[in-house]
Amino acid sequence: MTTRSQATFPPPIPEARRWLDGVTFSPDRPLINLSQAAPVDPPPPQLRRAMAEAMERAETHLYGPVLGNDGLRAALAANWAHHYGGSVGPDQVAITAGCNQAFAATIAALTTEGDEVILPVPWYFNHKMWLDMSGVTAVPLTSGPDLIPSAEDAAGLITARTRAIALVSPNNPGGVEYPPETLRAFFQLAREQGLRLILDETYRDFHSQPGAPHDLLTTSDWDKTLIQLYSFSKSYRLTGHRAGAIIADPDLLREMEKFQDTVAICAPQMGQMAAEWGLSNLADWVAEQRDEILARRRAIADHFPQLEAKGWKLLGLGAYFAYIEHPFAETSAQIAPKLVREAGVLLLPGSMFFPDGDPSGDRHFRVAFANTDAAGIKDFVERLAVLDWPLAAQKGAA
Amino acid sequence: MTTRSQATFPPPIPEARRWLDGVTFSPDRPLINLSQAAPVDPPPPQLRRAMAEAMERAETHLYGPVLGNDGLRAALAANWAHHYGGSVGPDQVAITAGCNQAFAATIAALTTEGDEVILPVPWYFNHKMWLDMSGVTAVPLTSGPDLIPSAEDAAGLITARTRAIALVSPNNPGGVEYPPETLRAFFQLAREQGLRLILDETYRDFHSQPGAPHDLLTTSDWDKTLIQLYSFSKSYRLTGHRAGAIIADPDLLREMEKFQDTVAICAPQMGQMAAEWGLSNLADWVAEQRDEILARRRAIADHFPQLEAKGWKLLGLGAYFAYIEHPFAETSAQIAPKLVREAGVLLLPGSMFFPDGDPSGDRHFRVAFANTDAAGIKDFVERLAVLDWPLAAQKGAA
Repeated sequence: MTTRSQATFPPPIPEARRWLDGVTFSPDRPLINLSQAAPVDPPPPQLRRAMAEAMERAETHLYGPVLGNDGLRAALAANWAHHYGGSVGPDQVAITAGCNQAFAATIAALTTEGDEVILPVPWYFNHKMWLDMSGVTAVPLTSGPDLIPSAEDAAGLITARTRAIALVSPNNPGGVEYPPETLRAFFQLAREQGLRLILDETYRDFHSQPGAPHDLLTTSDWDKTLIQLYSFSKSYRLTGHRAGAIIADPDLLREMEKFQDTVAICAPQMGQMAAEWGLSNLADWVAEQRDEILARRRAIADHFPQLEAKGWKLLGLGAYFAYIEHPFAETSAQIAPKLVREAGVLLLPGSMFFPDGDPSGDRHFRVAFANTDAAGIKDFVERLAVLDWPLAAQKGAA
Repeated sequence: MTTRSQATFPPPIPEARRWLDGVTFSPDRPLINLSQAAPVDPPPPQLRRAMAEAMERAETHLYGPVLGNDGLRAALAANWAHHYGGSVGPDQVAITAGCNQAFAATIAALTTEGDEVILPVPWYFNHKMWLDMSGVTAVPLTSGPDLIPSAEDAAGLITARTRAIALVSPNNPGGVEYPPETLRAFFQLAREQGLRLILDETYRDFHSQPGAPHDLLTTSDWDKTLIQLYSFSKSYRLTGHRAGAIIADPDLLREMEKFQDTVAICAPQMGQMAAEWGLSNLADWVAEQRDEILARRRAIADHFPQLEAKGWKLLGLGAYFAYIEHPFAETSAQIAPKLVREAGVLLLPGSMFFPDGDPSGDRHFRVAFANTDAAGIKDFVERLAVLDWPLAAQKGAA
């Protein structure tokens, strides 16, 4: 007998952390940890002050509504309508304990045993894990060499059991930003086929283009097809407080309310209060954070030629992530623990983002570059550039 | 097609809250809300101060380990070993975002589509909902007139698909405390049959007997059979912060880590820090809270004869709950919204704690009496005692 949890693999981040066990790093050459997309600093002082004030309000410590506090739902609806230029009401917004939970609640509302959801590969491993644990088949959709999947390819994968297509843009792990016309094509396909399009926009606030990344919310009845997922964790540095959101059809949110009630009761109040305060007061601060992340992105682009000269390739770059190809004979899964020991660098191997047994990720690494500053990025590149491990045979050669 | 969420019913608490819509209460006769087991006051000032100090530590705002912070796991293990007189190590403890999540993670680790879990009725509706959403059959185990189920009866319900028996003691909704010999008999049965015994002890800290409520942890290899669930929400008034725990076999916790990573990433840090501080500093305060809850329990017992004179019966009493029988012709589901309008009292009808179509709860109400003080309890009883609705026919009469 295989239980729900046994139907999937161990979580990659804790597995990667175990590669650090027993390895020591000297103070002049500390670990560069680019394994997890997570801010390493606390929220700004003005937000911490607002949170400390919330501590003295009784409701901060009490259960709230299952789908989130009214004030936060209204504030995010207004933010969303403004950003995407569409119509979004508070009843189209639900608050979850993080964006992973938003995905889990969505899948519980849309699918059952034996259903299928199409996911572009490389995929976000937690999406794959939740589908495994839900008895739902994750159908891999191969992306192009630019890491952009096509709706045309997705159309060929649709069966009678397909319920949804789930995209992440800006992409995790690929970093790439899906063009508006790609998103529109997926939306059209989903609508024509009676499917839902799940669009995880966790990294929205770090998109390289200002303004709306697509125009899907200007479509009437957008919520009959589109489900957007969002996270407050990266934008306001609230990872420890667990705050995410779903923007969707109110009827569907009532279905998700059952999942939320049973798994969470409600999202933690402190995170909700911080998110609401942030939406009202931190627009300029978030814009500065975005500038900083874009500067780090430029640092990757500026330094990468050093690695290209050694046979590395930059496959994708954007928001929090670079997705890169290494030139070595060993697989990325074999190299990753050696990178910790010999280069003091922690990265996730590409194989963590592909189906079991698929070798496509064997030469890839995801780099959560946003976790370090430009100096750290330079150091990171230099540490990789000096590695003189055996190279893979050239393609086409023996 | 029925999706996971469509396989279950809407959450009862929000449904009950909707009965309040459009009803106004005068200041001299406010609503007495005994629908949800939830403290109505914030945590004590010393705990709020500790939480405000935690706000200035960076780690409060960052992701933590999936199964919980090391310090809290160690502190709860020590508390548990001391309270139950057994051996419990930190690797046998995991921290979740509330006790509902602890149950959900447990079920994900133990079961898959088509499996069965035995639950005594009346059951805790969120347990039933999660089993429905997991494709697992909740097999109802009839309790005796004293609301105590028997292992002998449970033995007759075991099939090849049974994976676990889930008990709640002190019980929700029944209030009753399962005797140690009942718990021992269930443990023996589960062990002999190769099942797991899930024991939800959310209300442990309000048990009427001081000390260990059972001796199961003194059994060697207890963790091959027993899984205990706990909540910090009631004891430290942290409902809004979402902090619960699982005490179980480390191998099983590694399975649950997959669920936690995918649904929660980690329990919220502020709740974890508050729980750890509480374990170290609030033992005396929790003892005072327990005295107060026991005083409220006595107030129910003292005032109930007024209701007995009107045909009501007290079926169960303990921890946070009284479970009562009304004398009226209409069902409790019909009466509950009328109770709001005519008595200013919000209770959950017993039918919410029984399988769909089972009339056993039609004359029952759950009373979360711990939410109000002795004066409120007196007022509550008096408001019920004056109701002069049509009575049910006597049993045995036409």
